[in-house]
Order: sequence, then structure tokens, then C-alpha cells
Amino acid sequence: MAEFKSKIRTIEWKDTYSRMVDQTLLPKKYEYVNITGGQQMYDAIKTMIVRGAPAIGVAGAHGVVLYAQELEKEKLTREEFVKKLLDRADYLITCRPTAVNLRWAVEQQKELIKNSKSDINGIVEELKQNGIRLEKEDIEINKKIGDYGATVVPKGATILTHCNAGALATVGYGTALGVVRSAFANDPTIQVFADETRPRQQGARITTLELTMDGIPTTLISDGMCSYFMKKGMIDMVVVGADRIAANGDTANKIGTYTVAIAAKYHNVPFYIAAPLSTIDTSIKTGDEIVIEERSHDEVTHINGDWICAEGVKIINPGFDVTPNELITGIITEKGILRPDYKKSIAEVFKK
Amino acid sequence: MAEFKSKIRTIEWKDTYSRMVDQTLLPKKYEYVNITGGQQMYDAIKTMIVRGAPAIGVAGAHGVVLYAQELEKEKLTREEFVKKLLDRADYLITCRPTAVNLRWAVEQQKELIKNSKSDINGIVEELKQNGIRLEKEDIEINKKIGDYGATVVPKGATILTHCNAGALATVGYGTALGVVRSAFANDPTIQVFADETRPRQQGARITTLELTMDGIPTTLISDGMCSYFMKKGMIDMVVVGADRIAANGDTANKIGTYTVAIAAKYHNVPFYIAAPLSTIDTSIKTGDEIVIEERSHDEVTHINGDWICAEGVKIINPGFDVTPNELITGIITEKGILRPDYKKSIAEVFKK
Repeated sequence: MAEFKSKIRTIEWKDTYSRMVDQTLLPKKYEYVNITGGQQMYDAIKTMIVRGAPAIGVAGAHGVVLYAQELEKEKLTREEFVKKLLDRADYLITCRPTAVNLRWAVEQQKELIKNSKSDINGIVEELKQNGIRLEKEDIEINKKIGDYGATVVPKGATILTHCNAGALATVGYGTALGVVRSAFANDPTIQVFADETRPRQQGARITTLELTMDGIPTTLISDGMCSYFMKKGMIDMVVVGADRIAANGDTANKIGTYTVAIAAKYHNVPFYIAAPLSTIDTSIKTGDEIVIEERSHDEVTHINGDWICAEGVKIINPGFDVTPNELITGIITEKGILRPDYKKSIAEVFKK
Repeated sequence: MAEFKSKIRTIEWKDTYSRMVDQTLLPKKYEYVNITGGQQMYDAIKTMIVRGAPAIGVAGAHGVVLYAQELEKEKLTREEFVKKLLDRADYLITCRPTAVNLRWAVEQQKELIKNSKSDINGIVEELKQNGIRLEKEDIEINKKIGDYGATVVPKGATILTHCNAGALATVGYGTALGVVRSAFANDPTIQVFADETRPRQQGARITTLELTMDGIPTTLISDGMCSYFMKKGMIDMVVVGADRIAANGDTANKIGTYTVAIAAKYHNVPFYIAAPLSTIDTSIKTGDEIVIEERSHDEVTHINGDWICAEGVKIINPGFDVTPNELITGIITEKGILRPDYKKSIAEVFKK
């Protein structure tokens, strides 16, 4: 299978600092920013210079390294160093308290600090290596997802995607867009239709940018258009990411995903989720248990700072919706494609 | 049945000029502009100061009156007057050549000019009266549609609508929003969910404005959200307008309507079309024969003049889609609610 070389590297540790794409400037500019201090990393995550669950996780791990480097210069005892560093790590988690990957990565660094037998200098080095390992691991997992997914992409397919489950949400390859990249490496006649994804427009702002940067033909459509193109036979499959998957395969993803899934079912278009196994939360039985975050009303009423509607209108802005398992053709993971019955196939993959 | 008094009057003949809401200023300002000359009307229609098929029709009729008033001052012979006026009427149609109602209304004025036995002064007066008659007729038809529609709105219902089939698309009451107004007059506990309706955002810009002006509680949602709220049981019915209805009930309406209809079917939410019989084109057998207008790419790539996506992305921008009759619960007309089988019920209503 041919390998795809992406131009996108969302976040990367560079000797003494973390380099990341400043996603607040997208799609107008694709620029890197160097994060050289712990507080700067806290702010970068909070202000969404970096976004996307896996990317935020790695940013958190890097953040702990940056705090460690700062404390290293303070001439503390080892005990003082460890205590202060664990405090800063806890503080770092508070910048986006609901981000599961952030907590997961920072907790991993905390365990390393607590269990290390090394001196201060050694701890800093171990944290750094662990951050770099997390980066590599994320890219490897995505490439496996991409390669498994590519096996179900028909020759010359047009793939519809929603939101951005791409290189810019991860360290550098993407989950749903990882499938696109792996498929494109072997078949340059495939193309992508990208939903704008109102209200935050991640499809327009981020997906179209990363795909055109990588030379993959991309058509932007408004969210309501998907059924029109499906009816015309112009969409061969749908692939989207996931924020959380229940033990029965019900999948929470960006608001609007569920509508696309219903349209796909109506037109018999295969609908796939692409996500690492870490997205599956087997403690949740069904999608009904997933709490949907209500987001800021400004996201619906404003675009680029401008009012788009009458004042006085009411807003409900759910950030995610849940696609029931009956609408999902397969869940593409780094250990293969899970198929219905998901309760069984998910239980099995976690037994391995 | 209680009568609803709307604050909206989109277009109205005022003695010697046509007064209309300047829809290019919506939703930031609700202001009237007085159109006092024929060329000014041509420009107003072309630049979409007035939009919505029925409103454009009346604007066209008024435009012919304005040209007639100008020619009346030129001291022409009756023959010269008629010839020049017919020429200007033809020119007026060219400002939006695909607008069926514009042509229909202007052709009606042309027939009047050709068949009139009056002198120049008399012709001008007859044209004026015909324009006023068209206004009244449009409002009356809408009120009938509204009253029929209100009979199928459940007590305390939440009604989802897409785009703007409202007072601001007509002379002053609306078709889909006419149903809302008539229902609200009898039951002030009903409310509306309005789809934003990308790419042109008529739902956000126009529907939310006209409903909040009329005191009807309105929630704006992004287009992808409809299924989420349907699943939660928060939507009791969908009512939308129509641009064209085929003899079998297949309905062309603003892009995105078809996606809402599929979602409604999946959740067993009743889905109604509200439109005057003039929208039904019995010469078209099915929706497959309806040609879909491809609109400017800027509508998708820009909002308020700002880029929202990567440059180099491809765009397809269909202005309308076709909802197949199997997804339509009823077609609400000024002669009652048509039900499946539409081929039969449509044929019958035109026999009457």
C-alpha cells in the first residue's frame, strides 16, 4: 500500500519547545507558533490555538515538559520540584476541564513524575521523551485507521465528511481524513465533499484547508445540501470522526452528523465512523447516556463577529449529536473495522 | 377563527409610488424605500431589494404603472404611449428572467394595456387598480392557506421551517409563515424553530426578523441540527414553502428542504408544503423534470463578504432541491389541504 506524505504537522516537540499550527488563523493563514513556556501552553489550549482531542492531549503532555523546564532552573530540591510540577500539571488540566484527552495525557505525565527514579534533569528528559512518544503513537494509530479505512473506499469514490476529523485535529494524519489520505495515496482519482459544519464551520475553515494543502480535490458544500448530492449518486460513502462511542456503537460527534447519517441511510450510502479505540467508552451502554454540551449562542447568531439574524431570537446550540448504531455501516479503528452487532464486535476488540 | 394582524407589509402601492421593505438591509434594519420610477423598480428587483416570488410579481405590476406614469407626461399619441409602454414592460421582465411570477404579473399588465378601451389617463388608472388588486389577492390567498394550515397545527406545537416562505416573500402574510400566523392567532403557545438556511441564510436573516417583529417566539438553529431536535421530540411538524410543485406533488424548494424532509420521515414528524395553487405546474409530471438553478459560488465561500474556507476549493451551489412526494404529508393551498395520492388530488383541485 502506498504511503501518503501529508504537509500538515499540527504539533511537534522541537528540542526545548512545542511548535504548533495556530488554528485561530485558519483558513486565512497557515502559520506556526512556538510555545516556549507552561503558561503560554495553558493559554494556547484555552484560546483554541490548538484544538481537536488528540492534538490537545499531546499539547498537555508538552505543557508539562515546559513547566518542568522552567522549574528545573529554580534550583529546587527534588521533592520541591516534584510537588510544584504536579501542582502545575493539575492547573494545566483546568484550561479545558471537559477535554478527556488533555486530562488523560497530563495524568500520564504525572504518573511518570511520581514513579521516576531519576534526578530532576532525568525527569525532564523522561517527560520530553514521553511527549514525543505520544506524538508518534497518535500518527501511527491514525495511519492504521487510514489503511484499514482505505480498504472500503471504492475506486474513484467521492467521500463526504462532516466537521474536521483530520490532521489538524490530531498530530498529523487524521482519522476520517486519515482514511481519505490513505485512500488517495493508492487512488488519486478519489475526491472529498466537505460539509461546512455550522455553527463553527470546521469543515469550511479547517477541512478544506488541510485537504487542499495536501492536494486532495475538495468540494465545499452547505450542510443542507448532502441529500441533494446523494440523490444524484454523487456521494459514494460518508466518513466522519467521533467524540465518544458507547459500548453499543452509538456515536457522539459534531452536531449535524446525525442528519447526514439519516440522509445516507435513506439513499443507501455507506456511513462510516473513523476513530481510535480510545474514543470508545465501554462504561457507557448507549448513546442516551452521553451528555451533550450546550455551547455559546454567539456561535449560531454571529459569523466572523457579525450578526446574521434578528436580535431577540432564541438559541439552543448543542455541540454534538448522537448517531444511533443502526445508521452506522462500520467503525474504522486501528485494530480493524468493527461491524454490527457493535455490542459484540466492540466487546471482542477490547478482549484482544 | 381569530385573525392575525402582521406588522409586515412587504410591498404596497401608495397613490403614485410603490413602497417596499428594503430587504438588502435585513436583519440589521427594517426600513421602507419608495420606488418612484420604472428604472428604479428594475434596479430594486435586480438587486433584490424585493425578493420572494409573489412579492416580485407585485413589484413587476407596480413597475409597469411607474413606467406608464412617466410616459403619460411625455405628451405622446395613445398609439405611441401603448407601444413604448409595452417595450418598457418587456424590458422590466429582463431584470430577473427566471422569475416566473414577475413575467406572469407583467404579462397581465401588458394584456390590460392591449385590451383597454380607455385613453392614456384611463390606462394608467386601470394598471394602478390591477396592481392593487394583485396585492390584495396575494394577501387573501395567503390567509386562506394560513387558515387551512392552522387546522393541522397541534395545540402548543413547535413548527420547524426552512428558508423564508413568509410575509417578506409575499405581499404581507406568507405561505408557510402564514400557517404559523393563523395558528398563533388562535394559540399563542405555539412557537417556531427556524433553520438558518445556508448558503443565503434567509431563515436567519429574514424569518427570524419577521417572526420576532410579529411577537411569535422563534428559535434559530443551524441547518444540521434539525434531526437532533426531532429525536428529542421538540419538533411537532415541519412547514415550508415551495418554488414549484409537479403534477405528482414532488416539490422544488430552497436547497436543504429535502434533507429536512428525510429527517422528518425518519422521526415520523409531519412534513407540509404551504403554497398557492399557482405554484403547481401540472405541465411537469415529476420532480425529475425540474431544472435546478446553479447559483454563484460566492454564496458558499463567503459570508458578509469574508472568506470562510480555503481558496482553491471547488463549489457546487444548487439553489433548490426536490422533495419527493412520498415524504410530504400534505400540500396546504388556498383551496384546502391536498393529500396523497397527489397525482389524483392535484388533478381534482384543478378541475374545480
